[in-house]
Amino acid sequence: MRGSFLPLFLFVFLIQGAVFADDQALRQKALQAGLAPLPAVAPEAADNPVTPQKIQLGKRLFFEPRLSKSGLISCNTCHNLGMGGDDNLPTSVGHGWHKGPRNAPTVYNAAFNRAQFWDGRAKDLEQQAKGPIQAAAEMANTPDQVVQMLKSMPEYVAWFRESFPSDPDPVNFDNVVKAIGAFESKLITPGAPFDRFLNGADNALSPEQKDGLALFIDRGCTACHNGVNVGGQAYFPFGLIKRPGADILPPEDKGRFAITQSASDEYVFRAAPLRNVALTAPYFHSGQVWDLKQAVLVMGAAQLGAELSDEEATKIAAFLGSLTGVAPEIIYPKLPVETDETPRPQL
Amino acid sequence: MRGSFLPLFLFVFLIQGAVFADDQALRQKALQAGLAPLPAVAPEAADNPVTPQKIQLGKRLFFEPRLSKSGLISCNTCHNLGMGGDDNLPTSVGHGWHKGPRNAPTVYNAAFNRAQFWDGRAKDLEQQAKGPIQAAAEMANTPDQVVQMLKSMPEYVAWFRESFPSDPDPVNFDNVVKAIGAFESKLITPGAPFDRFLNGADNALSPEQKDGLALFIDRGCTACHNGVNVGGQAYFPFGLIKRPGADILPPEDKGRFAITQSASDEYVFRAAPLRNVALTAPYFHSGQVWDLKQAVLVMGAAQLGAELSDEEATKIAAFLGSLTGVAPEIIYPKLPVETDETPRPQL
Repeated sequence: MRGSFLPLFLFVFLIQGAVFADDQALRQKALQAGLAPLPAVAPEAADNPVTPQKIQLGKRLFFEPRLSKSGLISCNTCHNLGMGGDDNLPTSVGHGWHKGPRNAPTVYNAAFNRAQFWDGRAKDLEQQAKGPIQAAAEMANTPDQVVQMLKSMPEYVAWFRESFPSDPDPVNFDNVVKAIGAFESKLITPGAPFDRFLNGADNALSPEQKDGLALFIDRGCTACHNGVNVGGQAYFPFGLIKRPGADILPPEDKGRFAITQSASDEYVFRAAPLRNVALTAPYFHSGQVWDLKQAVLVMGAAQLGAELSDEEATKIAAFLGSLTGVAPEIIYPKLPVETDETPRPQL
Repeated sequence: MRGSFLPLFLFVFLIQGAVFADDQALRQKALQAGLAPLPAVAPEAADNPVTPQKIQLGKRLFFEPRLSKSGLISCNTCHNLGMGGDDNLPTSVGHGWHKGPRNAPTVYNAAFNRAQFWDGRAKDLEQQAKGPIQAAAEMANTPDQVVQMLKSMPEYVAWFRESFPSDPDPVNFDNVVKAIGAFESKLITPGAPFDRFLNGADNALSPEQKDGLALFIDRGCTACHNGVNVGGQAYFPFGLIKRPGADILPPEDKGRFAITQSASDEYVFRAAPLRNVALTAPYFHSGQVWDLKQAVLVMGAAQLGAELSDEEATKIAAFLGSLTGVAPEIIYPKLPVETDETPRPQL
């Protein structure tokens, strides 16, 4: 009886060994393709040291609707920390119910992007934060009005002093976005199944996800979507091989061309970072595709000239699902009460 | 040397004793006028037992923008838990940037009100929650669409099962508002200086606040603003003695008359609960008065026929500031990701 089990044991052992070897090979392949585990901490900007006080202030500002002209729209309105760090709308809605031109990117792990916005027009989180506060179709406010609002409340003045102790006049617009940037730099989502796989946990990915990862590399997706953020590092024309339809790539939005005025930047966008992509539909700068598999098919045709099969796209989408990490716990902040000097909401 | 201090000690002791006696008398007077400390726990509705599961579900629903047609507006948009439980706007802004007709009341301690809305048209928190979800100028949704949205996400289905274990088909609109009501019943703000004073802490109120409390009683404010919520218990005509101007009391909003069609209910509103009133400007159903002292003066003239002096109004406003309690800590909820069956945002 005992003897008869031995070959079975050996067989299982050999198969297991083969699987382990495959997993190790796939892991190496992923690392060689430029994919990498998400660090738990983002690098700090030299001119914006991240202190606990600044993070707290930044959190309050992130949830502060009085940063907007109406008093109704906060950063969290379009970058909802409970919904993957975006608004799950095709394009965002702002002041006066105006619809913005592009889909809101997630704020989670944005600290790891080379630049911010779909066209990379802001070099970091701090510069990014200046945009929506002032955009007419978003928060529609002015730096002067923001500073007046913050100076009107003694709690904010004290918090700015604590956060910028060497600054003689700390309540200013540059410090507003530094505080927001400091908070956002902590919005990291480590512990995704893909990270656990890269760190040695063979079973963190399902067989389908492993096939999807292999395809993601073999088909060339990693040419653009690489690094710790699986994208967000460089610019590429949308429709490199074949231009998508006007619903997905509206002709009037020429992407990075609007920044550089260089013909070679027409319809060029920053490769989307794919961390938590399963939480951030709808997809593309136009926000017109809700299904992740469909988005994979669009990308295959547009960027790689590849007619991916339904099965391949399913597997790649399953792999992309393994990029969903664990968002930090956020205690909802209590905001200070306004005073006579606080600008009134302008609806 | 020692002997020369004795009279001073005696003097201080006697003064202190007099102050203690005054404090005790003021405390008794306040209790006799119908004021009462805020309980830490709200009474439970017989048909809506408050379980931890239901509170959690209700919290998620409270912060869920997909309860709205646009996918952008949650309960928290107008009842911001970081801003005193309201939106600090004159009147609320909803779907399509429509301005609602009335100022959003705070959700904090609303469980202690006799009825909900400025006109009391909802008997409890559950019935209240049905209103804004469906109002065209607020969330503009339908019960069917809400149920479809919730049934489309397996996490919500599981949470409703846990929250309503004996219900064979738990995902329904009545249970949506029961869960929201259960969460809201925990939004209690105990520990206000006024409560500490009522509970025996003589120094919890400043001398100015004590004077204000005495005036609040002596001038008759407690005739309407009484009970644990310092209001919220009964209905009164706004302008009982002298009708305020049309900016504060717009002629087209006849208050409770719209509910009862009774001529005696013209311009009748529920006495505003005054807990945390210092956090919830602007004031009145029209939201046209930002300054609390000004609001006190308006009330004195309109309801009591009293020309309060500036000093008296200042003292009463200082007392009202002692009604600000400690709001519970809220961990911002993570919401489930949509599926193919989730209704898409309709902007």
